[in-house]
Amino acid sequence: MPHITLGSDEPGIRGLFRYRPETAGPLNELAEVLLRGDSTLSRGERELIAAYVSGLNQCRFCCSSHSAFAAAQLPEGAALVEEVCADPSAAPIPAKLRALLAIAAAVQQSGRNVTGEHVAAARAAGATDREIHDTVLIAAAFCMYNRYVDGLATVAPDDPAAYARAAEQIVAVGYTGTARPATS
Amino acid sequence: MPHITLGSDEPGIRGLFRYRPETAGPLNELAEVLLRGDSTLSRGERELIAAYVSGLNQCRFCCSSHSAFAAAQLPEGAALVEEVCADPSAAPIPAKLRALLAIAAAVQQSGRNVTGEHVAAARAAGATDREIHDTVLIAAAFCMYNRYVDGLATVAPDDPAAYARAAEQIVAVGYTGTARPATS
Repeated sequence: MPHITLGSDEPGIRGLFRYRPETAGPLNELAEVLLRGDSTLSRGERELIAAYVSGLNQCRFCCSSHSAFAAAQLPEGAALVEEVCADPSAAPIPAKLRALLAIAAAVQQSGRNVTGEHVAAARAAGATDREIHDTVLIAAAFCMYNRYVDGLATVAPDDPAAYARAAEQIVAVGYTGTARPATS
Repeated sequence: MPHITLGSDEPGIRGLFRYRPETAGPLNELAEVLLRGDSTLSRGERELIAAYVSGLNQCRFCCSSHSAFAAAQLPEGAALVEEVCADPSAAPIPAKLRALLAIAAAVQQSGRNVTGEHVAAARAAGATDREIHDTVLIAAAFCMYNRYVDGLATVAPDDPAAYARAAEQIVAVGYTGTARPATS
């Protein structure tokens, strides 16, 4: 049960967005730019970073949500998402994505844990400055979203179908679309 | 030296905002709503929560910045900010603010660390649901800003005058104002 009275049965961050629309606006805009905006990283790859960090933070709602969003947008689907979340160093992914996930794992612990070696390894695998920037900010942002969702003890659905339905919405209209009742 | 080429000498998060204006927009809007928007917590109290969490995350740029912003907006000034950052349980602050800072400290570790006891203590000291919500989100947001600033190894000025000048700007025009060159 959530720590505060949210006034709706919406699970996870969706209940928080309805409770406080003033903060929902920028929070959804940030997700839209980072995870779906113009980038040389695919939407599936960016959702994979989000799912991976949410798993490290043990945030069940965000990890289930972004795993579903990644699976829906990666050619390899849910099996690859599971492998990456279990152990990115053993998953069949390109070296660049593996190096970016190592940066994300460092950020999850502390920004101060990202070393010159992490960045050099990503660059050697072909990552651009912009890709490194966005990986750091995606990982940092999910350290916020995860704490927001769990810090207020929001509810995470048990049924995988709930996350699959949310994934259809995100793929179709994105984060700023789903935040507005007119598009839901 | 920053991990990536930012293309300006702006320190801390200001250099990141200039590098990537698309994410600067929602990041500044979020700070404006949380730290300066309509609230029963004063602007000084909210900046104090931001400074305290940034100190726990050992983010020198953010802790120095938000300590200066809190000092400029609290009647008790810089001395109180230092006392709170050193040990909120010993600082001369109202019980409600002390209980909210305890929630913020839990969030800094993990959203899952916020307990029913934390929330009940805040409520017993007079905190509303909205104040508890905003405290959790401010603490969570600074777990993002701090990781963003340090994860890209941005530069933090040594001179306290730099933070005092930034405080004047924030007090005068806020976060969304300073993000636009026309107001700087």
